Amino acid sequence: MEYDTITAISTPMGEGAIAIVRLSGPEAVSIADRVYKGSKNLSEVDTHTIHYGKLFDPKTEQAVEEVMISVMRAPRTFTREDVVEINCHGGLVSVNRVLQLILQQGARLAEPGEFTKRAFLNGRIDLSQAEAVMDLIRAKTDRAMNVALNQMEGRLSSLVSRLRQTLLETIAHVEVNIDYPEYDAEEMTHSLLNNNLLTVKKEVESILQTAQQGKILREGLSTAIIGRPNVGKSSLMNALVHENKAIVTDIAGTTRDVIEEYVNVRGVPLRLVDTAGIRETEDIVEKIGVEKSRKVLKEADLILLVLNGNEPLSLEDENLFRAAAGLDKIVIINKTDLELKIDMDRVKELTENSPLISTSLVKEEGIDELEQAIANLFFKGGIEAQDLTYVSNSRHIALLQQAIHHIDEAIGGIEADLPIDMVQIDITRAWEILGEIVGDTVSESLIDQLFSQFCLGK
Amino acid sequence: MEYDTITAISTPMGEGAIAIVRLSGPEAVSIADRVYKGSKNLSEVDTHTIHYGKLFDPKTEQAVEEVMISVMRAPRTFTREDVVEINCHGGLVSVNRVLQLILQQGARLAEPGEFTKRAFLNGRIDLSQAEAVMDLIRAKTDRAMNVALNQMEGRLSSLVSRLRQTLLETIAHVEVNIDYPEYDAEEMTHSLLNNNLLTVKKEVESILQTAQQGKILREGLSTAIIGRPNVGKSSLMNALVHENKAIVTDIAGTTRDVIEEYVNVRGVPLRLVDTAGIRETEDIVEKIGVEKSRKVLKEADLILLVLNGNEPLSLEDENLFRAAAGLDKIVIINKTDLELKIDMDRVKELTENSPLISTSLVKEEGIDELEQAIANLFFKGGIEAQDLTYVSNSRHIALLQQAIHHIDEAIGGIEADLPIDMVQIDITRAWEILGEIVGDTVSESLIDQLFSQFCLGK
Repeated sequence: MEYDTITAISTPMGEGAIAIVRLSGPEAVSIADRVYKGSKNLSEVDTHTIHYGKLFDPKTEQAVEEVMISVMRAPRTFTREDVVEINCHGGLVSVNRVLQLILQQGARLAEPGEFTKRAFLNGRIDLSQAEAVMDLIRAKTDRAMNVALNQMEGRLSSLVSRLRQTLLETIAHVEVNIDYPEYDAEEMTHSLLNNNLLTVKKEVESILQTAQQGKILREGLSTAIIGRPNVGKSSLMNALVHENKAIVTDIAGTTRDVIEEYVNVRGVPLRLVDTAGIRETEDIVEKIGVEKSRKVLKEADLILLVLNGNEPLSLEDENLFRAAAGLDKIVIINKTDLELKIDMDRVKELTENSPLISTSLVKEEGIDELEQAIANLFFKGGIEAQDLTYVSNSRHIALLQQAIHHIDEAIGGIEADLPIDMVQIDITRAWEILGEIVGDTVSESLIDQLFSQFCLGK
Repeated sequence: MEYDTITAISTPMGEGAIAIVRLSGPEAVSIADRVYKGSKNLSEVDTHTIHYGKLFDPKTEQAVEEVMISVMRAPRTFTREDVVEINCHGGLVSVNRVLQLILQQGARLAEPGEFTKRAFLNGRIDLSQAEAVMDLIRAKTDRAMNVALNQMEGRLSSLVSRLRQTLLETIAHVEVNIDYPEYDAEEMTHSLLNNNLLTVKKEVESILQTAQQGKILREGLSTAIIGRPNVGKSSLMNALVHENKAIVTDIAGTTRDVIEEYVNVRGVPLRLVDTAGIRETEDIVEKIGVEKSRKVLKEADLILLVLNGNEPLSLEDENLFRAAAGLDKIVIINKTDLELKIDMDRVKELTENSPLISTSLVKEEGIDELEQAIANLFFKGGIEAQDLTYVSNSRHIALLQQAIHHIDEAIGGIEADLPIDMVQIDITRAWEILGEIVGDTVSESLIDQLFSQFCLGK
């Protein structure tokens, strides 16, 4: 397939030492050549070589930037097309000037994810690998990055291919049976079908078992710190942020509405709401009532409920327990450096099966225990994420669940002795659905929508 | 000179398509080679070539990232040393993993500006060119970038060299006169000295004339919008931001204390304080009194004083005029869509020689006129920045002013018939001071301090 030539800034916006404007497409080299002056013409240089020079505006003859240009010719490139990368000084004006110059020469501004989309459309990677590229960029911890790297290398793809192959063989067998019923005893077909389907189902289920963990690795464990005023919520947040390197602070645009802190607690990425948010939760139960606040808390993956050990349990504390009942939580008795005045028996009763940790945040005691409790809660059953083939992507999870649904239908159909061609419909559907993971059987609009979530320049 | 091998992340931190980890030094290639697996060893590849492969952790044998590696051997590099650039996927975890891996192999984390410092120490660029590199990255407008580009190309350097050459010849002439007074009539020496010194002085003065403009281009015109509540300050700010592309929003760390908007008004970069700041200035005069607020306003390069044309002039308005008296200001009569109730004669009297503009911000009227007034005020005397050799750097400005001071002393000495070796001291000092601009006669601690202001990875 032949496309037009696209361009975009491929480094994050901001002041840095180096910025990159990337081009991909049949005109990539010739467009760059029109504005480049160096010791050679770019059209004459070898592939995968780097050239120093200057960019000039052909209209004004003015020098625009001092650059290093990388020329990479198809097909050994990210997109399988000719790719040119212009490394310029990393200022905002500088990189925008270079981009404008390239656009003036006839390149089109790339849509988000369009470079990766071309890698997919040109057959270099499949859809799950393309999605892994984005996961890799957004990874908040080493573990999340390993999941993405594995997926990018095609581990999920080959697993899915194997399952689809089994389903395809099953379908072929069924078709033989439909066309030439005399070749096979129906009994035998049923048993073979059942075996194959159960095998596929088991494998999909085992992938799904690790999926929730993968998803949290990717998106972070949304964590709410709740408790009455002055029990130590801010100290707890600070302890978690300072003990563990904060990974990144997301600042949404210039609106300053949402600020989240990511911290990496023993490999578990926690997404903490900001102190302003915490201040609000002080009164959350009081303000909106237990039922409503429960709904709010339910959106959190983890609740850290902080109590003041130096004071008797109050009605507010009890309300907080009620609001957090049945949710994943850790109860923290803070201020253990002071006299214990809280009714521990009642606390244990309210805590139920959740972990109960004592801390003295001013003395920096108990933080290790808390972190271990968070890690234990996350790595339930001790699956310490050594098998990294799991799925982390909501789209993949939904497709795997749909596939299981159709396999179950097929198995049920066999058991209910439905006509074999009815069963075949479900098996075929499961095969198609698994194909959507790697992009074999997927609509153009879905592809567009998926890549539009990418960042610019990728 | 031989240095150790340094490394740093050279792209801005954030999620982007591509990030770069750069290495420079004698071990750059061998360090990269130890963790790289591709079709060739990096030690065997040609200079200025690009190689696809993977980085592995030699301890765990685990794949760390998929990368493109550029190998550039000395001396045709940014630092004149061997340089390796590792292009990886632009996530925070990804690029930090690559950096850690390289550090583990024995590279040292570069200090801010250390790559550019090596370019300077290895003689590829002089000090004023190195400083221009940083100015270029920080440039907020096209014009500021042109100034930096010119300086980077060495225009300031060659100008300074020429002036120093003249001073050196003068010094030589004086020395001949001191050693062999019989060779020259003292009268002639005096006249020659005077001529040379006056020439140098005139040139330095003409550079300095454009310096203030250059400095503003570099740093932005610090602009305060003042006025009573509800006269339209926020609308004015929005109009300026929306009409003109906002260049950048600086967010200092995570403190959220200072948010500044940069807008490019006809080539003039305005640094506007944020709306929170504007809200404060509403009461600034009231709160801290005219005298104190005058001090605050004095820090602004430009004051936009907004009045409500639909209301009579109030005491507060008059106070604002008093606070802004004598400062660079533009007076704006807003709400001209409503009935004019303000005493225009009194306003004109208070405005003195400053521009007076009528606007209806709700109807988007008068904004063009305001922008033109800002541009006129900035490009005073119509120097429309075609001669771009001017200086924008405070350090350079200070040095040029010192040089003029010593040249004046020397001229004064000649006129007062001081002994010629007394005069020579001042000429030599001027020569040394000009040398500091290009880094010829500059202390190591000053060099360290200058480069420490650079961004990491440059």
